[in-house]
Amino acid sequence: MNKKYVYLFSEADGSYKELLGGKGANLAEMTKIGLPVPQGFTVSTEACNLYYENKEQLSDAVADQVRENIVKLEEITGKKFGDLENPLLVSVRSGARASMPGMMDTVLNLGLNDEVVVALAKKTNNERFAYDSYRRFIQMFADVVMEIPKQQFEVIIDEMKEERNISDDAEFTAEDYKEMVQRFKDYYLKHHHETFPSDPFEQLIASVTSVFRSWNNDRAVYYRRINDIPAAWGTAVNVQEMVFGNMGDDCATGVAFTRNPATGEKKLFGEFLVNAQGEDVVAGTRTPLPMEELKDIMPDAYEEFERHCETLENHYKDMQDMEFTIENNKLYMLQTRSGKRTANAALKIAVDLVNEGLITEKEAVLQINPKQLDALLHPHFSEEALKGGKVIGTGLAASPGAASGQIVFTAKEAKEYTDKGKKAILVRLETSPEDIEGMALSEGILTARGGMTSHAAVVARGMGICCVSGSTDVSFRGDKVRIGEKEYSRGDYISLDGTTGKIYEGEIASEEATISGDFEKFMNWADEYRQIGVRTNADTPKDAQQAIDFGAEGIGLVRTEHMFFEADRIKLVREMILSKDEAGRRKALDQLLPIQQSDFEGIYEVMKELPVTVRYLDPPLHEFLPTKESEMQELADDMGLTLEDIKETVAGLHEFNPMMGHRGVRLSISYPEIAEMQTKAVIRAALAVQKRLDVKVHPEIMIPLVGHITELNYVKEVVDRVANEEIEASGQELNYTVGTMIEIPRACVTADKIAESADFFSFGTNDLTQYGFGFSRDDAGNFLNDYYEKSVFEQDPFVRIDEEGVGELVKIAVEKGRSTKPNLKLGICGEHGGDPATITFLYNVGLDYVSCSPYRVPIARLAAAQASIQNPREK
Amino acid sequence: MNKKYVYLFSEADGSYKELLGGKGANLAEMTKIGLPVPQGFTVSTEACNLYYENKEQLSDAVADQVRENIVKLEEITGKKFGDLENPLLVSVRSGARASMPGMMDTVLNLGLNDEVVVALAKKTNNERFAYDSYRRFIQMFADVVMEIPKQQFEVIIDEMKEERNISDDAEFTAEDYKEMVQRFKDYYLKHHHETFPSDPFEQLIASVTSVFRSWNNDRAVYYRRINDIPAAWGTAVNVQEMVFGNMGDDCATGVAFTRNPATGEKKLFGEFLVNAQGEDVVAGTRTPLPMEELKDIMPDAYEEFERHCETLENHYKDMQDMEFTIENNKLYMLQTRSGKRTANAALKIAVDLVNEGLITEKEAVLQINPKQLDALLHPHFSEEALKGGKVIGTGLAASPGAASGQIVFTAKEAKEYTDKGKKAILVRLETSPEDIEGMALSEGILTARGGMTSHAAVVARGMGICCVSGSTDVSFRGDKVRIGEKEYSRGDYISLDGTTGKIYEGEIASEEATISGDFEKFMNWADEYRQIGVRTNADTPKDAQQAIDFGAEGIGLVRTEHMFFEADRIKLVREMILSKDEAGRRKALDQLLPIQQSDFEGIYEVMKELPVTVRYLDPPLHEFLPTKESEMQELADDMGLTLEDIKETVAGLHEFNPMMGHRGVRLSISYPEIAEMQTKAVIRAALAVQKRLDVKVHPEIMIPLVGHITELNYVKEVVDRVANEEIEASGQELNYTVGTMIEIPRACVTADKIAESADFFSFGTNDLTQYGFGFSRDDAGNFLNDYYEKSVFEQDPFVRIDEEGVGELVKIAVEKGRSTKPNLKLGICGEHGGDPATITFLYNVGLDYVSCSPYRVPIARLAAAQASIQNPREK
Repeated sequence: MNKKYVYLFSEADGSYKELLGGKGANLAEMTKIGLPVPQGFTVSTEACNLYYENKEQLSDAVADQVRENIVKLEEITGKKFGDLENPLLVSVRSGARASMPGMMDTVLNLGLNDEVVVALAKKTNNERFAYDSYRRFIQMFADVVMEIPKQQFEVIIDEMKEERNISDDAEFTAEDYKEMVQRFKDYYLKHHHETFPSDPFEQLIASVTSVFRSWNNDRAVYYRRINDIPAAWGTAVNVQEMVFGNMGDDCATGVAFTRNPATGEKKLFGEFLVNAQGEDVVAGTRTPLPMEELKDIMPDAYEEFERHCETLENHYKDMQDMEFTIENNKLYMLQTRSGKRTANAALKIAVDLVNEGLITEKEAVLQINPKQLDALLHPHFSEEALKGGKVIGTGLAASPGAASGQIVFTAKEAKEYTDKGKKAILVRLETSPEDIEGMALSEGILTARGGMTSHAAVVARGMGICCVSGSTDVSFRGDKVRIGEKEYSRGDYISLDGTTGKIYEGEIASEEATISGDFEKFMNWADEYRQIGVRTNADTPKDAQQAIDFGAEGIGLVRTEHMFFEADRIKLVREMILSKDEAGRRKALDQLLPIQQSDFEGIYEVMKELPVTVRYLDPPLHEFLPTKESEMQELADDMGLTLEDIKETVAGLHEFNPMMGHRGVRLSISYPEIAEMQTKAVIRAALAVQKRLDVKVHPEIMIPLVGHITELNYVKEVVDRVANEEIEASGQELNYTVGTMIEIPRACVTADKIAESADFFSFGTNDLTQYGFGFSRDDAGNFLNDYYEKSVFEQDPFVRIDEEGVGELVKIAVEKGRSTKPNLKLGICGEHGGDPATITFLYNVGLDYVSCSPYRVPIARLAAAQASIQNPREK
Repeated sequence: MNKKYVYLFSEADGSYKELLGGKGANLAEMTKIGLPVPQGFTVSTEACNLYYENKEQLSDAVADQVRENIVKLEEITGKKFGDLENPLLVSVRSGARASMPGMMDTVLNLGLNDEVVVALAKKTNNERFAYDSYRRFIQMFADVVMEIPKQQFEVIIDEMKEERNISDDAEFTAEDYKEMVQRFKDYYLKHHHETFPSDPFEQLIASVTSVFRSWNNDRAVYYRRINDIPAAWGTAVNVQEMVFGNMGDDCATGVAFTRNPATGEKKLFGEFLVNAQGEDVVAGTRTPLPMEELKDIMPDAYEEFERHCETLENHYKDMQDMEFTIENNKLYMLQTRSGKRTANAALKIAVDLVNEGLITEKEAVLQINPKQLDALLHPHFSEEALKGGKVIGTGLAASPGAASGQIVFTAKEAKEYTDKGKKAILVRLETSPEDIEGMALSEGILTARGGMTSHAAVVARGMGICCVSGSTDVSFRGDKVRIGEKEYSRGDYISLDGTTGKIYEGEIASEEATISGDFEKFMNWADEYRQIGVRTNADTPKDAQQAIDFGAEGIGLVRTEHMFFEADRIKLVREMILSKDEAGRRKALDQLLPIQQSDFEGIYEVMKELPVTVRYLDPPLHEFLPTKESEMQELADDMGLTLEDIKETVAGLHEFNPMMGHRGVRLSISYPEIAEMQTKAVIRAALAVQKRLDVKVHPEIMIPLVGHITELNYVKEVVDRVANEEIEASGQELNYTVGTMIEIPRACVTADKIAESADFFSFGTNDLTQYGFGFSRDDAGNFLNDYYEKSVFEQDPFVRIDEEGVGELVKIAVEKGRSTKPNLKLGICGEHGGDPATITFLYNVGLDYVSCSPYRVPIARLAAAQASIQNPREK
């Protein structure tokens, strides 16, 4: 038997979502539960995939099945395609597994031609309606199928208005529409060199094909990338009998939600238009009426609609977003789906549904997209305020939130402004670790270069500060910055939306995030199901406290180098680097030791008995050195050296590929005295806090960038020696562990060896992605856009883990590591640790915890809970 | 039962090499076949490893077994340790599995103390001999065991000579030696704060321990790294009854080879000294006599020795290197091993041994170290000429051979000099692709920076030109170069030895390589056993012809970018890069097309029906751009742009990590028009040569740096489309294939997917090593020396493949690739392809061919043959 590619609505149900898309499956489900759905059929997503396998040709098998199903639809409706008595008209709509509103193509009123339109006029006794429908069909078909821009037809409409001296479509007569049809067809012929197709079946096949083609249009590809939708899913096509909301004043069309999508309030919410087609509601040429008014205008239809709403909510156990049409007082349901909602509404609805007994707590936990929680934790511009805002540029939505303030160009200026009580927006080509303090003081950060995992983006997310990064609209001219079309100076006001990536001129009022009481209740439900830990990446007591407030269960990553950039210590760090010998380095390190120790004490005091993973010095040393001659001179004076000496050392530390250079564990091998100092600081701080607070502190020492067991062994020996000396000298007991980051491909494939010496692995998936793919996040910007445009890549592997490749390396490491130590503790630190899809993947791979920036902790808790519910681990 | 760590010579045989080291096994074997060997025992390599496991403590079990075996040795010899009648004296010598001459420690005359020396004097009736032996023992023991420098004792000897007004050791009397012993012991006490140990057993245990310790001394670690010897092998210790060549004129000691190690001539070759200990032969204070003279002096001993030589050659089926001692006219054999020999001698001996019926052709093939062949293919300084040479610096022996000429500093100067018939040595900080032409014209290349796989090293090896790279003795001062202690100017003569890495002042005469008739015969034997192909990396017809002469069976890598640097085309390449749009790029590419096509035609004409693998454009584009302002101005003028335009574009192409940037397949995705041009050139050239020469040309198109199947698919579609158009238009038939380099870790773990679209894989182990380890070859120099010094790494992973890690990635790729396509063709191109150890590994992993620079082809052929013999593949 041949493969079945086409299903009547009556042949499927809601479980067919994968095969028939969300819309198709829901139409079938509504049909099944007896709602008034105009009948039709769905061409499956498999047909779409077949279309792409056949180099964008619709296969004969699919075309044949479409034809067979048109015959069946004719039987069901009693109408006939192209019939001159009782013609069947259909709509052709896309419908993927995930909702992708507006991304793909739609054709309405299909089946009309010069003869059928006459029949329609006669049957409906409404010539104006019939020709209006016909011209709409030509316009849509030409646009969607033949890619003749819609605007060309709008020009014709405008010409005709001018000729008739009218301003509103409503003033067109039936004769006007007849002429419009003729002019449209002429234009079509002229532009396309073929007459407009009159055979309804030909129209249908062309439309189905074009919907499949639209699966790969630019905006659909972009939408999929942003929303983690694989290209391989494909779209289905729904062919459905047309019903008309524009046949007269006993007709209407509208869109409604079963609950308020902004607030979550349990009350029907929506809009409709009398005597209109769906596109009119969207187009905004007429102002739609609120749903309440339908009650007065068409009470029967309204009452029936209310009943269907209740049926659908009870059936789907979720707030629904529906389209409907009333044709001659008869209500038709055209679509239903889970309604999009704000984060606050999502929380309220989930909790309400539990209270109403409609869903369980577990189902509530599954109902909210973890990414949505972000909006609850950051300020945002009010919708009112945004209406006056002028968008002057866009960039990457690197760190969510909203910020207004005055432009500053350096971290120093940020401090000057904020010292005076002003709000600063730091605008830079890119940020570097030296900017940390200025970044922390700014309201928001805007950079011209750098992706979602650039320094600016990572640090801003960690701090919970709004950031728009890598904006190609931003460029620097002398002491001004050009954003979009205009130049701005220091002190000018701009606003940033880190959730959308938009840059606005001037100040815009923002609203603080408000966490409702539902939030805590909901997160507690999530935690009940969660089976892996959630930690945070935090370098300061403040970040650590923020993360604990958000529910973090430990620190998975303290980046010790961030501490080195503060003003009082960068000088010591530089002296250490510029020392010619070990003695000189030790002298500087001795002065750094008490400072670093006190940093750790601050963190332990917040974390108390929770584990704290400290990563040893990671970046290449030249990152700490001054780049400006004035700073070099200052340093030379301080150290009693010449400027030339300093320049020579700086030049000597230059690396061709710093990402593949002298960093991470390699530093500890060349300069074990650094690891000694850090070990003393970690252990002494722990001993001090244990004594002071009478708690058991749990330091976990983490060696970065290990590729070979011998590297880990070398440093571990230093660490254990120093730590044991310190502990013995203190007379206290202290448990510490020594583990390693797994971020080098070689470490993954030799993880069985490395596990012999490691107490834990923490995956550094950011570096692992860089080395695994062989491209650096700083340089990939030069070509990844080409990759997305040409559909070579669908996802940014720095945002969501590349499961197939980098994920495979992680799997190999997990298997090999656990083959040596079955209970090896496994975690992830780094940016991927806050990405819900990545969390699901890593949970399934067997990790014990994830660690992410403080503001992502709630997201990670929810994502981890959902992963556990979907695939519970044996206890 | 306890583990056995100590074996009497009579308990083992030649097969115990792994456990007892080469020396120990051979002493046992000689004992077994009845040669006169002073008896003793061997402490095993396992005891050495145990010593290191126990943190450098000799275990009690080993010490106990040593004691038991001393008792056994006492029984065998009839002498007793510390006995005052008939004392047993022993030597303690290291002996690893592989010969490491002079790298580890030796103690002779052990067992002497203040009492025993009197007994020895009495027994031998030679007081002077006894005290001389005793003072030698103190000196050696202090040096080796207590690390008191030998020189301190030499100072005492010199003082005593001065006091006595004598100039020669021979003039010391017995009394003098007695006093010397006392002075040595005083010095020992003063330096070490303990008296010299008088208990023979205590002396023995300390000596055995110190030999184990010497396994990890700096020179042994270095020697192991250079010679691919794993630290895990450990050394054995041989304890052997002393026999004395210095008891009088009926005594002698010497070293001899069964054949001439320089020429291979079948004639006893060696030296001896009458009345001397072994160390005297080495020390060079007395001039040894040639072996022939022994015939006259001690005819019986000589005749017996000749007999033993024959026995040993017949037994070991190889040329032997032996040590012997004659004590009171009685001959003792102290050691035998396969003798080191020159490459020419190795060939002659192998072929002679086959002709003599002593070994089979297969055994002959196994007998030669493939690396030795290198010396046969390059010129070298004659030993005579070298005697006058002054070494002024050293660097890495990057490309073998010998060269003399005048210093030039730029490629342009190299051309000027050679145009005038002068010989040029190009001396540079480092080389870049722009220097290619000047490099090819130079006699030799010397660089201050860069390792064994730096640009200079790789290109020089490819061209067969002598190169010394990364010499820290070289630095630049204005228009002079400092080498070692002195500055040199343009035009000054220097000489380079690329085989040793030495730099000489002035001109030194060199001898051309001479390939004997044995070479071809021998290589043909090797080819009979070889089961994988050997191809070459060649970018020019000249290189290709050279490789074919050396037996290459195809080209595994044409680097197309090398062609882009020649003067007539670099301008076009730059125009292409600087074009603002596709049209501009296409214009430049159209002009490049016929040039590139003619390059390929030249190569096909040489290779004819042999396969030619062409790699598409690989390096980041900025490598092609000018760096000097004058060149930029010129380019700007040519293109009608401003200097600022050019500077901006060049700056825009800057990458933070070029190795992880916009290169390889990423270029073909951003600019598919480049792949189109290269496809046209590859295919048109093949079609033209097929027609012209009436042969079937076999182009293999290779896409570099693929990490994801979608990348390969994108480019393959371009290639197939263009290729098919060209082939169809020609009316000819042409078979081409499209494959990919596997050099990205992600490609290895997704090789099953990539194999779906690839006709072949060629491993780029150089890049795979960089990404797999996460360090670049250009930057690793900053820390790899620390790694070697601290024994973190033993081997340079860019020279010999890292089997455990990078090799594992290769294995994964092979398994996954073949799981999709069981007959997938697998090869390696790049530097590792010429390394014998790597070839063995890759053969065992299942590769079909290796590809290396032309001058390494014979090495690869031999290494591949040896791998096949050791582990034959099923046909």
